[in-house]
Amino acid sequence: MEAEVVAIGTELLLGFVVNSDTAFLGRVLAGLGIGCTRQVTVGDNRRRLAEAIRAALSRADLVITCGGLGPTVDDVTLETIAEVTGRRLILNREVLRRIKARFARLKIRMPKSNVRQAMIPEGAIVLPNEIGTAPGFLIKLEGGQTPWGLTPSGFRLLAALPGPPAELMPMVKERLVPLLKRRASGTIILSKTLKLTGLTESEVDAKVRDLLALTGSVTVGIYAHPAQVDLRVTAKASNSAQAKRLIQRIEGKIRRRLKRLIFGADEETLEGTVGALLKKKRLTLAAAESITGGLLQHRITEVPGSSAYFLGGVVAYANALKVSPLGVEGSLLRRHGAVSPQAAKAMAAGIRRLTGSDLGISLTGIAGPTVASAKGGLTTALGPGSTRPKPVGLVYIGFSSPERIEVHRHCFSGSRSAVKFKASQAALDLIRRYLS
Amino acid sequence: MEAEVVAIGTELLLGFVVNSDTAFLGRVLAGLGIGCTRQVTVGDNRRRLAEAIRAALSRADLVITCGGLGPTVDDVTLETIAEVTGRRLILNREVLRRIKARFARLKIRMPKSNVRQAMIPEGAIVLPNEIGTAPGFLIKLEGGQTPWGLTPSGFRLLAALPGPPAELMPMVKERLVPLLKRRASGTIILSKTLKLTGLTESEVDAKVRDLLALTGSVTVGIYAHPAQVDLRVTAKASNSAQAKRLIQRIEGKIRRRLKRLIFGADEETLEGTVGALLKKKRLTLAAAESITGGLLQHRITEVPGSSAYFLGGVVAYANALKVSPLGVEGSLLRRHGAVSPQAAKAMAAGIRRLTGSDLGISLTGIAGPTVASAKGGLTTALGPGSTRPKPVGLVYIGFSSPERIEVHRHCFSGSRSAVKFKASQAALDLIRRYLS
Repeated sequence: MEAEVVAIGTELLLGFVVNSDTAFLGRVLAGLGIGCTRQVTVGDNRRRLAEAIRAALSRADLVITCGGLGPTVDDVTLETIAEVTGRRLILNREVLRRIKARFARLKIRMPKSNVRQAMIPEGAIVLPNEIGTAPGFLIKLEGGQTPWGLTPSGFRLLAALPGPPAELMPMVKERLVPLLKRRASGTIILSKTLKLTGLTESEVDAKVRDLLALTGSVTVGIYAHPAQVDLRVTAKASNSAQAKRLIQRIEGKIRRRLKRLIFGADEETLEGTVGALLKKKRLTLAAAESITGGLLQHRITEVPGSSAYFLGGVVAYANALKVSPLGVEGSLLRRHGAVSPQAAKAMAAGIRRLTGSDLGISLTGIAGPTVASAKGGLTTALGPGSTRPKPVGLVYIGFSSPERIEVHRHCFSGSRSAVKFKASQAALDLIRRYLS
Repeated sequence: MEAEVVAIGTELLLGFVVNSDTAFLGRVLAGLGIGCTRQVTVGDNRRRLAEAIRAALSRADLVITCGGLGPTVDDVTLETIAEVTGRRLILNREVLRRIKARFARLKIRMPKSNVRQAMIPEGAIVLPNEIGTAPGFLIKLEGGQTPWGLTPSGFRLLAALPGPPAELMPMVKERLVPLLKRRASGTIILSKTLKLTGLTESEVDAKVRDLLALTGSVTVGIYAHPAQVDLRVTAKASNSAQAKRLIQRIEGKIRRRLKRLIFGADEETLEGTVGALLKKKRLTLAAAESITGGLLQHRITEVPGSSAYFLGGVVAYANALKVSPLGVEGSLLRRHGAVSPQAAKAMAAGIRRLTGSDLGISLTGIAGPTVASAKGGLTTALGPGSTRPKPVGLVYIGFSSPERIEVHRHCFSGSRSAVKFKASQAALDLIRRYLS
């Protein structure tokens, strides 16, 4: 089975909205073994949409439209599909009941225009919308039935879905996929992503170069992100179990070479991995952040249940907060500067002392884009007796555990946001390596 | 002039990458007065790509391809364009010199395959790539010159751009736009987005309903985001100055109605607006976060120069940190619970006292997805003598200034991340309203 996706929306053509629906559909179709060969976007224009749907139906067995099912005159998908397939639009009482119930629940009077959303092409299977008002639908087109004279060998499927991702995604997962599964019979494409941090793309490349050169039923791709490198193993097979076996074999090889460097797979996050390890070892953590300004603690607390192991911490942006409550000595800051291994060490020790946590992490550095001026003893980023500013991107990370205190020096490149993110990533990975 | 965009990449069809290039190009073309009528994505497949480029050239004056210019055999754009346009590929010595210089700078030996990237269709204008190796190019196709028998009235332009957004974006801005400007002569589409927070979409809608109904040369659209509503004014005119005047008139009307509710426009952020106001008034700020876990301080410190007004704060995730260093009385927490207006008030006062800041902000609440259990006096989210848990999404925000302390109660919906973000948004807006 081959598919084409037709997205509808002038907003998409004008670039006001980035189209995430087609990427989502691409992943879902690949997982079903349905190859997607083309994605087309047209505006809210009946003539162009009809042309696009006709062309897609002349090439593919499955055509999926996204968008244009709203209640306003701009929304032309329903009428266009009726025209292209030669089907009448019929009021579906069950759909109308659902739409009315939805408005009643929200205590809003249903505008007349919404009745239109209960019109469904004759013979179509309704795909109920649990989030919004517009239902989707699926039409089976028999050979010869299409009015433009085509006589397809077997049948073609035309699915119409609403545009908002929050409505489209559950409809695809819960309604469309079960219907397509019965008909799909092509090559399954599955993939698994292994995530690493702490190495550059070239360093990872050097370790798995032979695997990156694989061609055939299983391939490996390398993808660099800020402070993260992904290895994606993709397998093609005639069924899902076989694809999973192919992936497992290569995943095993990668894991044997990269070992502890891999922090997670697919949807797993570094902060989630750290959280799971802390929970398992029944250890608590606290943080003293300067350069990252709260980002590290924000990431840690994105994990549900993080209050079980994360006590909190201090964002010591001004140096006075490094002195109190963190307990870093003013003389140390004057002698070495706030961006120094000495300050990082004292901050990591200080946050453990203040909170009574098992582990303490600290970050101090220069996020940029400009280096703070040299005025005033405590507020300078300059070293002692030096007029040479420390470079933007310089970060010291301190880590304090019951066994030891260590300090790591990094020099990160990129924007202010990038430096903050990379520093938080390095701090999380330092904790992860200690725990695993 | 009418344009079509052809994106190339099996990665896009499989949904491994979300295509942001076409949205970017859509915005750029709209700003030049060039209507984009269709976007097509095909895989790394010569036959399908040739078909897509031919079809696009048969409809549009300007066809832009993105992607497939890399050095590997998967990258088929160069050969396909040569085939479709009937142009020979010629080695461009200047391009080769640049590619070699780039590898020399990176101290890497240039792989042989990269020589291919210096091949350019005969007669094409080179669009240098300042970021990566693959240059883009622009071909002017005269009438009758195309080998598939079309005789266009005047000429057609075919531009080929690299796929990575970091390479495509500067190439478009610095190289392609100046070349297109001379030829563009259609309707300019410009837009300006006004941003609000603190009102729901329906509340904003009720205030500008007449403007949302505008049709013609200037229109207003409403777009809801988490804890933010955008009003986008879009104008069509024959030149940029006229479009700007049209926008200004409607912007004035909107501003007169919504006044202080608007926190910024276009690329401005709420944290940036708050920062500018603090700087202007020479006031300092500190934060005591519980529920938001550092997100508020992270957002504040995303703004360059924030160290001038932001002192830092405490992430008091565990209640012990609310007691010390924040100075909230243990008896208060036992009596009212940590999620209470009393706790928010004491935290806002405490962070001002601890840091000596002019303004103090505090947040306490329940982020979810589950409510903390009721065990243990200080760690419970339950109220005194109550076994009824407080609901997920309940947030108290405290604000302390030299004049007063106030507490605001909110109940936010959504995921853990959504609740955290909405709470940080409400806190920033509270500070903004005080300052403006």
